[in-house]
Amino acid sequence: MNPSPKAIGIDIGGTKIAAATVNAHGTILARATLPTEAEQGFPRAVARLAQAVDRLLQQAGCAPSDLAGVGIGCAGPVDPAAGLINNPFTLAGWNRCDVVSPLRQRFGVPVWLENDADAAALGECWRGAAQGLDPVVMLTFGTGIGGGVIAGGEIYRGADGEHPELGHVPVDPAGPPCYCGTRGCLESLASGTAIGKAGQTAGLPDAPAVFAAATRGHDAARHIVERARHAAATAAWTLFHTFLPKRLVLGGGIMNQHFSLFATAIDAQLRHATQFTRSGVTVARAALGNDAGLVGAAALVFRRMATPVSQGPSAS
Amino acid sequence: MNPSPKAIGIDIGGTKIAAATVNAHGTILARATLPTEAEQGFPRAVARLAQAVDRLLQQAGCAPSDLAGVGIGCAGPVDPAAGLINNPFTLAGWNRCDVVSPLRQRFGVPVWLENDADAAALGECWRGAAQGLDPVVMLTFGTGIGGGVIAGGEIYRGADGEHPELGHVPVDPAGPPCYCGTRGCLESLASGTAIGKAGQTAGLPDAPAVFAAATRGHDAARHIVERARHAAATAAWTLFHTFLPKRLVLGGGIMNQHFSLFATAIDAQLRHATQFTRSGVTVARAALGNDAGLVGAAALVFRRMATPVSQGPSAS
Repeated sequence: MNPSPKAIGIDIGGTKIAAATVNAHGTILARATLPTEAEQGFPRAVARLAQAVDRLLQQAGCAPSDLAGVGIGCAGPVDPAAGLINNPFTLAGWNRCDVVSPLRQRFGVPVWLENDADAAALGECWRGAAQGLDPVVMLTFGTGIGGGVIAGGEIYRGADGEHPELGHVPVDPAGPPCYCGTRGCLESLASGTAIGKAGQTAGLPDAPAVFAAATRGHDAARHIVERARHAAATAAWTLFHTFLPKRLVLGGGIMNQHFSLFATAIDAQLRHATQFTRSGVTVARAALGNDAGLVGAAALVFRRMATPVSQGPSAS
Repeated sequence: MNPSPKAIGIDIGGTKIAAATVNAHGTILARATLPTEAEQGFPRAVARLAQAVDRLLQQAGCAPSDLAGVGIGCAGPVDPAAGLINNPFTLAGWNRCDVVSPLRQRFGVPVWLENDADAAALGECWRGAAQGLDPVVMLTFGTGIGGGVIAGGEIYRGADGEHPELGHVPVDPAGPPCYCGTRGCLESLASGTAIGKAGQTAGLPDAPAVFAAATRGHDAARHIVERARHAAATAAWTLFHTFLPKRLVLGGGIMNQHFSLFATAIDAQLRHATQFTRSGVTVARAALGNDAGLVGAAALVFRRMATPVSQGPSAS
């Protein structure tokens, strides 16, 4: 085996694509960011991405023979088995787009594609807040709320390889309606969008303003934040009684700012739980920040290196 | 490999122990039932169980060389890795009781122990309502509500090998308090105990009386049944957004009688779901009835026969 293998990790989001050369220790050696510009078409984005990868390999002094593979986390829905991005929702026009084949042909290495929430969870397990723990659930509180589950060292997949939709776990049937089709799911109560929208009815422009006003004792803002904390605690209860993670990792913009606020609510609720062993079970803030997806994408490459791989999974 | 291997499947409950000789097709060849009599001590129960197994082997014409192994499903908590029953709650005095070693020594074959809800789920996957499907979630609605998850062909295990507690998924924060430590979990709203208790406040003696009165149009009874249906539908929503089963199997006394009532509520709610692919995803009534645990316990033996096993997992 190559003594110093490198991976390319790629994180494709609605507005930008981040890519990095990562070594087998999870250290980022070189990085690049490019605008996604999904509306300019998928082939053009792939061509720009391939050029960026060329530059990243050069910058990291990575010979072609050192490249072990390419891992991609992408805003879902994606089809990991087929290597397809099926996300016309936030990547305009990108439906049934094969991102794996062109990169595999260009670089002659295996290429893996996963949902970005799963890649982030894997990154936190490999080099972040959940090293050596299993199972692990990660929730990312941003504009929406996404999640990933790592169990038995693998990304948990449901029917037809689909990805858990942890933001849409029901919390309160009296809550607001959500595009997912129910009322009062976690995302409808605790996402940045939900908090911002609730704030607007109280004359507060956005989610940061709601948190700031709550700190100052603004009644409506405090109520909105309490509701979000309660939603997070209830969803955590659900996750600890279903997936039973050894650690629940909380990431995303809201948790970067307000982790303690939410973790104390979760801990207070879990303290009453009698039906699972709470000993050694913890809630932790994500450690890798915006790099979790990149590092996790690289982890897709290195975790497969124990078994010889000549082609990506989509070649089957 | 033996051309006609047999397994002994054992289902240990609070009041009775069922045991059977089962062939590799999942057919029950001979069966026995004995009272658990947990309070008379664990060693005595094991001795009686071993004698019952002797008789079962004789009745099924099973030579010692035909016996491939013994599988046990037991009312939890159990520790499958250590082969220990840790259930002083419904099996008086049975704490840290090693059921695997004595049976392995007596019969000279591998012995496996699992939670009875997991064994039942495995039974339904092997020979019941979920054959060939994966992942599968089974919920059993009885006195309480238990569940098991089969994913990637294996029993899903959480932190420290623990077993999901699907009856304690939160449904409605305005619901009744539960011994699990929260309010309004599935079990607190839809178990036989919960329905019976709610019925008593309306002058109805037990859960069957509540269902019967609801059919006659009794207002309070209808309200209780509607609340239970809504709880089942909400919990199903949670399970389809977390474990994403290909099939949700509903078993237990309540579902034997009232499956359609609950399945229509679940289907009606899931019809609105936008965030997972509902195509090919189904809710089904358990097919094996009270034999699911027995058959699943035998499945523990046969599913391990593909790889050579000389000793049970607790020997490690």
